[in-house]
Amino acid sequence: MRSEELGETLLPKRLALPIFASDPLSSVAYATQEILLVLTVGGTAFLYLTPWIAAAVVALMAVVVMSYRQVVHAYPSGGGSYEVVSTNLGARSGLVVAASLMVDYVMTVAVSVASGVDNIISALPGLAGYQVVLAVGFVALLTAMNLRGVRESGNAFAVPTYLFIGGILLMVGTGLIRVLLGDGPVAESAAFGIVPEDGKDTLAGFALLMLGLRAFASGCTALTGVEAISNGVPAFRAPKSRNAATTMAVMGLTAVVMFAGITTLALTSDVHYVDNACQLTGLGTDCATYTQPTVIAQLAAAVFGGDHSFLFYFIQTVTALVLILAANTAFNGFPLLASILAEHRYLPRQLHTRGDRLAFSNGIIALALVAGGLLWLYDANVTSLIHLYILGVFTSFTLSQIGMVRHWNRLLGEESDPGVRHAAHRSRVINAFGAVVTALVLVIVLLTKFTEGAWLAVVAAVVLWVMMRGIRRHYDAVAEELAADDPRAASVRPSKVHGIVLVSRLHKPTLRALGYAQAFRPDELEALTVAVEADALRELRAKWEEFAVPVPLKVLDSPYREITKPVVHYVREYRRSHPREVVAVFIPEYVVGRWWEQVLHNQSALWLKSRLLFTPGVMVISVPWQLSSSRRADRPGRRAPGAVRRGEPAPRSGRERVEPRP
Amino acid sequence: MRSEELGETLLPKRLALPIFASDPLSSVAYATQEILLVLTVGGTAFLYLTPWIAAAVVALMAVVVMSYRQVVHAYPSGGGSYEVVSTNLGARSGLVVAASLMVDYVMTVAVSVASGVDNIISALPGLAGYQVVLAVGFVALLTAMNLRGVRESGNAFAVPTYLFIGGILLMVGTGLIRVLLGDGPVAESAAFGIVPEDGKDTLAGFALLMLGLRAFASGCTALTGVEAISNGVPAFRAPKSRNAATTMAVMGLTAVVMFAGITTLALTSDVHYVDNACQLTGLGTDCATYTQPTVIAQLAAAVFGGDHSFLFYFIQTVTALVLILAANTAFNGFPLLASILAEHRYLPRQLHTRGDRLAFSNGIIALALVAGGLLWLYDANVTSLIHLYILGVFTSFTLSQIGMVRHWNRLLGEESDPGVRHAAHRSRVINAFGAVVTALVLVIVLLTKFTEGAWLAVVAAVVLWVMMRGIRRHYDAVAEELAADDPRAASVRPSKVHGIVLVSRLHKPTLRALGYAQAFRPDELEALTVAVEADALRELRAKWEEFAVPVPLKVLDSPYREITKPVVHYVREYRRSHPREVVAVFIPEYVVGRWWEQVLHNQSALWLKSRLLFTPGVMVISVPWQLSSSRRADRPGRRAPGAVRRGEPAPRSGRERVEPRP
Repeated sequence: MRSEELGETLLPKRLALPIFASDPLSSVAYATQEILLVLTVGGTAFLYLTPWIAAAVVALMAVVVMSYRQVVHAYPSGGGSYEVVSTNLGARSGLVVAASLMVDYVMTVAVSVASGVDNIISALPGLAGYQVVLAVGFVALLTAMNLRGVRESGNAFAVPTYLFIGGILLMVGTGLIRVLLGDGPVAESAAFGIVPEDGKDTLAGFALLMLGLRAFASGCTALTGVEAISNGVPAFRAPKSRNAATTMAVMGLTAVVMFAGITTLALTSDVHYVDNACQLTGLGTDCATYTQPTVIAQLAAAVFGGDHSFLFYFIQTVTALVLILAANTAFNGFPLLASILAEHRYLPRQLHTRGDRLAFSNGIIALALVAGGLLWLYDANVTSLIHLYILGVFTSFTLSQIGMVRHWNRLLGEESDPGVRHAAHRSRVINAFGAVVTALVLVIVLLTKFTEGAWLAVVAAVVLWVMMRGIRRHYDAVAEELAADDPRAASVRPSKVHGIVLVSRLHKPTLRALGYAQAFRPDELEALTVAVEADALRELRAKWEEFAVPVPLKVLDSPYREITKPVVHYVREYRRSHPREVVAVFIPEYVVGRWWEQVLHNQSALWLKSRLLFTPGVMVISVPWQLSSSRRADRPGRRAPGAVRRGEPAPRSGRERVEPRP
Repeated sequence: MRSEELGETLLPKRLALPIFASDPLSSVAYATQEILLVLTVGGTAFLYLTPWIAAAVVALMAVVVMSYRQVVHAYPSGGGSYEVVSTNLGARSGLVVAASLMVDYVMTVAVSVASGVDNIISALPGLAGYQVVLAVGFVALLTAMNLRGVRESGNAFAVPTYLFIGGILLMVGTGLIRVLLGDGPVAESAAFGIVPEDGKDTLAGFALLMLGLRAFASGCTALTGVEAISNGVPAFRAPKSRNAATTMAVMGLTAVVMFAGITTLALTSDVHYVDNACQLTGLGTDCATYTQPTVIAQLAAAVFGGDHSFLFYFIQTVTALVLILAANTAFNGFPLLASILAEHRYLPRQLHTRGDRLAFSNGIIALALVAGGLLWLYDANVTSLIHLYILGVFTSFTLSQIGMVRHWNRLLGEESDPGVRHAAHRSRVINAFGAVVTALVLVIVLLTKFTEGAWLAVVAAVVLWVMMRGIRRHYDAVAEELAADDPRAASVRPSKVHGIVLVSRLHKPTLRALGYAQAFRPDELEALTVAVEADALRELRAKWEEFAVPVPLKVLDSPYREITKPVVHYVREYRRSHPREVVAVFIPEYVVGRWWEQVLHNQSALWLKSRLLFTPGVMVISVPWQLSSSRRADRPGRRAPGAVRRGEPAPRSGRERVEPRP
């Protein structure tokens, strides 16, 4: 996309909502289920906690949305949590947010896909047992689409998201009206009793508190993705900040209504959802193979009557679709974050070059491999995966709220307009409150989830953090080493160029290298060959004479039949005795069109080049000979050898400007 | 090893026997066992066939040894089956032998290690259940030893092999004497009855014949490795051929005596060895976890009394040791064969360069990966692996005997001396008989083993064959394409050199590239940069002026923020408008010392280079800047970047000779 074109794609609110909100809204598809699942360890004894926990989640959602509305107003450039924290709390904290977000992007893919697959299987039970295959298949599909650069139009997001919102609201509304009419829907799992885990039905005091907190921590998954809008402010139509803040409020309200509605309906229709199906009474020995329909599926079946109604399939379809779309947002967000980090030199520089599809490809493939690996490792089990998920979200929430408090403090120190000061005071209170609340939740999540898998997310984030700091330190060290500070350096040049053409046989590539070398007119020029086999050497000399090559041929003996060593040694010795000269080594090279041809050629040339480059005062000159197979490979869009997995857009002409001589 | 040193290492017969014969002799450790295992499908009903089958194997061994003695005399250069068949039956058949041998080297490693591990476990039953781990561990150990270039002295082979021969003969002798004294040893498995597989105890007619043939095919494993001596004739002391032939006869005799002795002893001591331990009566439900001691272990325990006698452990130790040594011979043979095939351009050329340890490393690693993979796939089960084994052996036997018949025919067509003709006639009869017999065995093996796993060996050999032919065709096509036939080509050279220095920032590497480029004095020189970010461009221009760089700076616009495309496009356009000039592109490049630094730098330079090389009339000049970390990496023996897995011997000086100008 050209920079000038960016202006044309600004989003109206009605499109921005589905684009940014598919991730946070889709999480209501599993949040209620995860709360129920934690509480049923004690049979049905603690389900009475559900409304309180749901209320706490709703309150938390309100706090987070309000806090992020402040971010949207204060940072219309849309840097998101990473920018807010880097600016206000320093680079180290910013990097903590970046590492957390990277882990979270992976988990967004894994959890959303796993939950989407669960909802598909709830509608098509014949697919039970193929969870992992389906999940990995969806990741592969998303990967392929993103690698090929297929980008959804706004409508591709808008239609499923609005259908999902509408469908869920219709389901909740219908269900609740039926409850009021005395004909409340009854879930298919209502018939099952729940056997509590050993001794878990008599929890009290601290143990009960921990159970409640665990359920709450699981319910907090409803908040994932809330900050997406704060990253996307620049994409809104003017007035950007106000539109973004409004969209965020609408998003928050929608999520809250959907989540509260689903939870209420689940309680009234007596949904029983457990971690281990063998806790359900009435299944007998079938429990090992029984797949529980998701809470959404159970509600849809209960409300719309039976498994074969159109609306049941409709709800399942849009739910699965929105979940897959949510996974797709991570495929867009991850390379973008990587690009920003690369710009700040925390990741390899090439990830920053936006135009280079290669960068995004690497990011997409890395994301897909890790997410696919987790899905495979955790059997595409939503519950297991969710334990790894929300830690990063709340780390980033907490740090950005703290950063915002620092932001308002600084603003208040500089600002004197009483109106602005008043607004800043108000915002500071909101963000401070948000920081305290989210920090509390972070501690709760850490306490309740650490041993259940969250430690892995922590380890991953720490490893990323250390790696990114190491990369930055390396780039800084190199930049310092390379900095040119003395203008006289521009006039330093070697006294003489000593040219060496490497020769093995006298075929066309060698002749071309000799011709090019002579055209360069170096101060001295010689041809160099390594005598490995006597016959080959004899043949070379004969041909050298027959062709009357006007360059002297020097032969290096190689008693151990090596090629690289004698050449490198010869070049180094020459440099040692002529330290003010530069040695130019011409190497004839084949250019081939297929990767396996690359394996068959140039191996010793490649190795030799990499060794020669270690020697100061040496230039290595590749004189390519294009084999006929290379012509086919050199078409636009075709792959080049040695880079078979890299794609590139078709060539476009660059405009030229010639600078005057300084 | 220098060529001159080769003469010093010629082998006396007493050392040649263990070095070449550890493979064929060690196979007696499992041949008897495999015969028994096949016959017990029908309970004890068909064990009466054992002596007849063993006799057939002994006869076959005699035929093969006699046939190969003719090869040794006719081909003292020791090319082995591959050379015999290539010379006499043409390259295509030779390649069949080569592919078969490559498959067989893999199977030698897998079968020998698996059998060695079985014998270790028979002595130390506590290790049962760790077969795969132990087997893969041994393969890893052999790989490491061979990668590090640890070569056994002749004694390292001689001592275990002679101890093995001595031990087995002692065991057989003691056992048979005890039988004659009426105190015959009784194997621990003699107490077990054998339950025949369903209906297999009433086999008759064709089915019985097939059973016998299957047992015979399994027993033919005793013949693996017999041709090793015929490959090694040049390593013998003079008279080479006669010494080799004698050694082969001794080897054949020893193998026959050991095999016959083990089989006789196994029958008299009533060893019961079955495919599935649950066929044994008296084990009850323990059969699933019961590990049968190998036949050798059962005999050693029966003859030398109990599991705790010194001689029992001695036999198990030397048996395991010889089997591991046999696997090691494949680690030596495989890269050597690959080197010969590479010389004939059937494999990538770099595999031929002997001095380059890289070549051997690749061969060793490939062999280890495939053998280890098979051990893992087949649970290190000797019986399953053996099904894949002997097919290659007998393909190579058959083809080389046919080749020898052709050889004698040709000799008889040229020779007139009646003495020589008489000998040739005699040899021809022997080889023709050998060809018929081994071809028959090949058919038997194919018929009885194909569905049990041999198909995989066939597929592997066919794939190798097709691949090697493809490689050869490719090399031939390239050689033809590159052949220089017109001496006038030596005086062709471009009219002008147009130099382009690629610039991103003005740091030390750029200044060095500019300095080197100016030292070359090309006809024209310009600096080229791609404008990706306005700030960076402004900074570059400012510094360009500050440093007063005496080279004009050309700026390419890149609206899509790409680097490669505009540069390649510019260079191609230049070439199109100046077809008689050559373009020299100078690329400043960082040389780093650690592989991960390579990831952080040079990626766009690498990509650009690979694209530029596709353009005719372009030279690509790498001007290296050695970062401080590279100095550490440039010590001898250290690894170079981008080649972290390649080792190289320490540098040695090459002697120089300067050729006079022609």
